[in-house]
Amino acid sequence: MVRDISAVDTMTENVESFRQLSPSEFFYRNKEIAGFSSPSRALYQTVREFVENSLDATEVHGILPNVVISISREDSSNPNYFTVSVEDNGIGIPSNIIPDAFGRILYSSKYKFRQTRGMYGLGAKMAILYGQITTGKPFEIYSSTSRSNKIFYYKLSVDIRKNEPIVFEEGAWEKKTSWHGTIAKVTIEGDWNKRTRDYISVYVKRTAIIAPYADITLIMPKFNGEQEGNGEEESEIVCYKRVTDKLPVPPKETKPHPLGIDLEMLKMSISESKNKTIKDFLMKNFQRIGEKKAEEILKIAGIDFDRNPKNLNDKEIEALYKSIKSVDFISPSPDPLSPIGEELIKIGLKQVLNPEFVDAITRKPKSYGGHPFIVEAGIAYGGKLSENLDEIARDSIKGQSGPFIALLRYANKIPLLYDEKADLIWSVVNPDDFNWKNTYKLDPSDIVVVLVHIASTKVPYKGVGKESIAQVEEIRKEVEAAVQELARRLRKYIVKKRKREEAEEKFRIFLKYIPEVA
Amino acid sequence: MVRDISAVDTMTENVESFRQLSPSEFFYRNKEIAGFSSPSRALYQTVREFVENSLDATEVHGILPNVVISISREDSSNPNYFTVSVEDNGIGIPSNIIPDAFGRILYSSKYKFRQTRGMYGLGAKMAILYGQITTGKPFEIYSSTSRSNKIFYYKLSVDIRKNEPIVFEEGAWEKKTSWHGTIAKVTIEGDWNKRTRDYISVYVKRTAIIAPYADITLIMPKFNGEQEGNGEEESEIVCYKRVTDKLPVPPKETKPHPLGIDLEMLKMSISESKNKTIKDFLMKNFQRIGEKKAEEILKIAGIDFDRNPKNLNDKEIEALYKSIKSVDFISPSPDPLSPIGEELIKIGLKQVLNPEFVDAITRKPKSYGGHPFIVEAGIAYGGKLSENLDEIARDSIKGQSGPFIALLRYANKIPLLYDEKADLIWSVVNPDDFNWKNTYKLDPSDIVVVLVHIASTKVPYKGVGKESIAQVEEIRKEVEAAVQELARRLRKYIVKKRKREEAEEKFRIFLKYIPEVA
Ligand SMILES: Nc1ncnc2c1ncn2[C@@H]1O[C@H](COP(=O)(O)OP(=O)(O)O)[C@@H](O)[C@H]1O
Ligand SMILES: Nc1ncnc2c1ncn2[C@@H]1O[C@H](COP(=O)(O)OP(=O)(O)O)[C@@H](O)[C@H]1O
Ligand SMILES: [Mg+2]
Ligand SMILES: [Mg+2]
Ligand SMILES: [Mg+2]
Repeated sequence: MVRDISAVDTMTENVESFRQLSPSEFFYRNKEIAGFSSPSRALYQTVREFVENSLDATEVHGILPNVVISISREDSSNPNYFTVSVEDNGIGIPSNIIPDAFGRILYSSKYKFRQTRGMYGLGAKMAILYGQITTGKPFEIYSSTSRSNKIFYYKLSVDIRKNEPIVFEEGAWEKKTSWHGTIAKVTIEGDWNKRTRDYISVYVKRTAIIAPYADITLIMPKFNGEQEGNGEEESEIVCYKRVTDKLPVPPKETKPHPLGIDLEMLKMSISESKNKTIKDFLMKNFQRIGEKKAEEILKIAGIDFDRNPKNLNDKEIEALYKSIKSVDFISPSPDPLSPIGEELIKIGLKQVLNPEFVDAITRKPKSYGGHPFIVEAGIAYGGKLSENLDEIARDSIKGQSGPFIALLRYANKIPLLYDEKADLIWSVVNPDDFNWKNTYKLDPSDIVVVLVHIASTKVPYKGVGKESIAQVEEIRKEVEAAVQELARRLRKYIVKKRKREEAEEKFRIFLKYIPEVA
Repeated sequence: MVRDISAVDTMTENVESFRQLSPSEFFYRNKEIAGFSSPSRALYQTVREFVENSLDATEVHGILPNVVISISREDSSNPNYFTVSVEDNGIGIPSNIIPDAFGRILYSSKYKFRQTRGMYGLGAKMAILYGQITTGKPFEIYSSTSRSNKIFYYKLSVDIRKNEPIVFEEGAWEKKTSWHGTIAKVTIEGDWNKRTRDYISVYVKRTAIIAPYADITLIMPKFNGEQEGNGEEESEIVCYKRVTDKLPVPPKETKPHPLGIDLEMLKMSISESKNKTIKDFLMKNFQRIGEKKAEEILKIAGIDFDRNPKNLNDKEIEALYKSIKSVDFISPSPDPLSPIGEELIKIGLKQVLNPEFVDAITRKPKSYGGHPFIVEAGIAYGGKLSENLDEIARDSIKGQSGPFIALLRYANKIPLLYDEKADLIWSVVNPDDFNWKNTYKLDPSDIVVVLVHIASTKVPYKGVGKESIAQVEEIRKEVEAAVQELARRLRKYIVKKRKREEAEEKFRIFLKYIPEVA
């Protein structure tokens, strides 16, 4: 795998040696780009990655999620070692796959055309790597699928140079119950301070807001102002009980949309295709291409309908590609998406914030570059809202000049907490660019909570840490439209309320003068 | 390479299939995280990656850089196809290495402990991939090292599934001159609009500001307000002539600092070591470990000095690791760094901005997590400065409330243009957090140009697109100290100037009354 060649340049006396890094080594060297930039952040990111895997393993497959997250110090001689374990009642992982799923970076079941939280085949492995390089402790996993009559156990690490699993222990037990699911456990160097605690608990809270159908328990060391644990440590337990049994419709895997492919993808799928004719190839491998559309495309490209796809030369494939890009298609099917829905958003905001006014909107599916997406938004105002803001939201509004916007960002149901100012959504709703004051009649002292969720088969994150969303014009427009609509409704409410208050005031004055008039 | 295993779960009727993605396929699917998020941005990023390779191949090796960048439409039937070619007089690439260096993602000569612009083994390959998937055209390269008597030519693409080169053509010519260097050429889908033009030309301009020892020529289509070229296209040529022959001292590869290693690195280098004793191993493989220090470390770890490193067990290696982290070391050597220097920064700012006041500072080397770094800063004020701001700086100050800060960010001599608001440097110098007005006596209408350069063996970029720097406390402190010092000097200048003006004013008034007094 590893090549080492030296190139000597005698004149400049320069010797350059070259090397191929494995994907493990690449991410190991650059762990901060995946969110593992410090012990505190690594703890947060570890919780995230495991929780997101658990929700993908349940909700995406029609199972009401039960998730238990536990963070504890188990090693009294190393008070900065934290064991994170996450248990779920998901579909489990077949035992023959476990070592690769957790020991090979970029090994994943989530490379498909379907909305999932995971997308890079990276998350769990980054946490495992981080544990391995900071505490030296291997990863442990228990898992069982529902059709298996055993529970499997593995203890493993990642071989960084080779990008493959090193299995230290494996075992299996007869299953006495119908349990299926996974328990993933890793020990990493962390840093338990107020900020770590806040980020993790806000992450779980915001997850619960938009997943009222989930049962989530978070157990973590009580933070008492001290940095280090003192032997017998107290725990803090936070429970989010299931509020509804209604799951959002799970995402359905679909074929790619013709506008979402590039020349290389077309070449690859032609070279891997088993279709006898190119017309058949087009109809079978893409959504939104029926018989007529296939013929239209082939006519423009000047290719016979019954040509064998494998016999097309590069020029012809290029002509085909251009022809595909030149015709019109029905926009991508929203089947692979699983939005939250207006009802659940309103329930979540009401429960957590106890506001005076709340509303929500789920926009129609749109697409960018062949990827379908749906933007949803919620808005909350007044009442007990400002007392109920979480720590991150409170921190965020501190830097603003009013009216204050507390933004709850979500992408594929993941709450995004870091890098707010670099995010597409912030660039739309922030009070410098969105005219909350003049157009929407807010007072400078008002606080508004805005929730925005972007669901897509491909969320255009700026980085593999999945923390902020890049500027994509199509998405930006939808976010704008959603928030404008909600702001309009809020304005209507505020104007009505003010009128009512004015009328009441007038009436009061009127009452005052009645005796004199009378 | 590609595995496909299906895991069937009969109860939930869920079938999950798994797959290992190659690093090529990973970055191909997620090209936006490497800066290839749109045709316009891809054009900018392509220029960057090739220019940065050219500067690494010259300056890092003590060669005064000559770089010619040319962007042109060559295919009249595809006005959105752009050919980018970058030529340099660098060390060249040995012919046997060329296919891997440009056809394998993560293949690189820049994985060493030394300051270079490249760091991920990704840049050139991303541009090649992008060309391949948008225009289908392969990459072309001419290269010769100084000791070779031939010039080599290759035409190649990346096999995405396998992460290996596909060579379409190769050739070699006798060399008639002593030329050495590289010409890299790729054709990608781009978008030539004002924004693209501005970003590319500002990128080159800012590169020239801090590399007055380089000769850089940029040839690009003249932007005349139209999006598409019209057959015979005019070019715009910008030349930055070499102003000085003085190169900064090139970076020198060094051994890693003991504080920069983690447990896994220690295990790997022990397993790969050829040293007979562990004491020897420590002294030979790290900087800042002499005989005494090695013995101190081993005593704490309870390991005999003459143990064979290969015979240490995991527990012992962990003890060794902890011991290393517990002792004191001289901070990392700055040898692998190559700062710009105060003189060159001042020359650059003066030449380009023509300000009334300019100053610069190069701080002493510091380190974070074993990585040495140096922060440098420059400041410019008054004069013709505001007329000479480039497009990006002008855009950036638009959103601010005065005093206005135009920030020029650099990392390892790369100008950073995107994601300013997410950057560590901005979080220090922005007028909301840095008290330019009260502490440093600026007027609300003043514009100040601040240049900050971070040089390190590992710049903590937030992403592989190398556009913004993550919050690292040690670096933050240095940036703050550098800018505070320059702001103090500026204040002194301003206060003096105001006093002089006041004195002149008084004198004028005095003169006015003299006749009456007399
Ligand atoms: N709790 C879990 N239950 C079921 N499958 C899981 C679980 N955690 C991880 N997996 C499987 O392991 C794969 C790798 O996980 P991960 O490294 O986090 O990458 P990603 O989630 O991006 O695919 C997932 O694609 C999924 O198929
Ligand atoms: N113009 C050039 N001159 C000499 N060597 C080059 C040039 N461009 C690229 N290379 C070599 O090819 C390697 C791969 O380049 P690239 O893909 O940009 O990754 P990186 O610059 O991060 O290493 C570099 O490490 C360098 O050794
Ligand atoms: Mg995951
Ligand atoms: Mg990023
Ligand atoms: Mg490079």
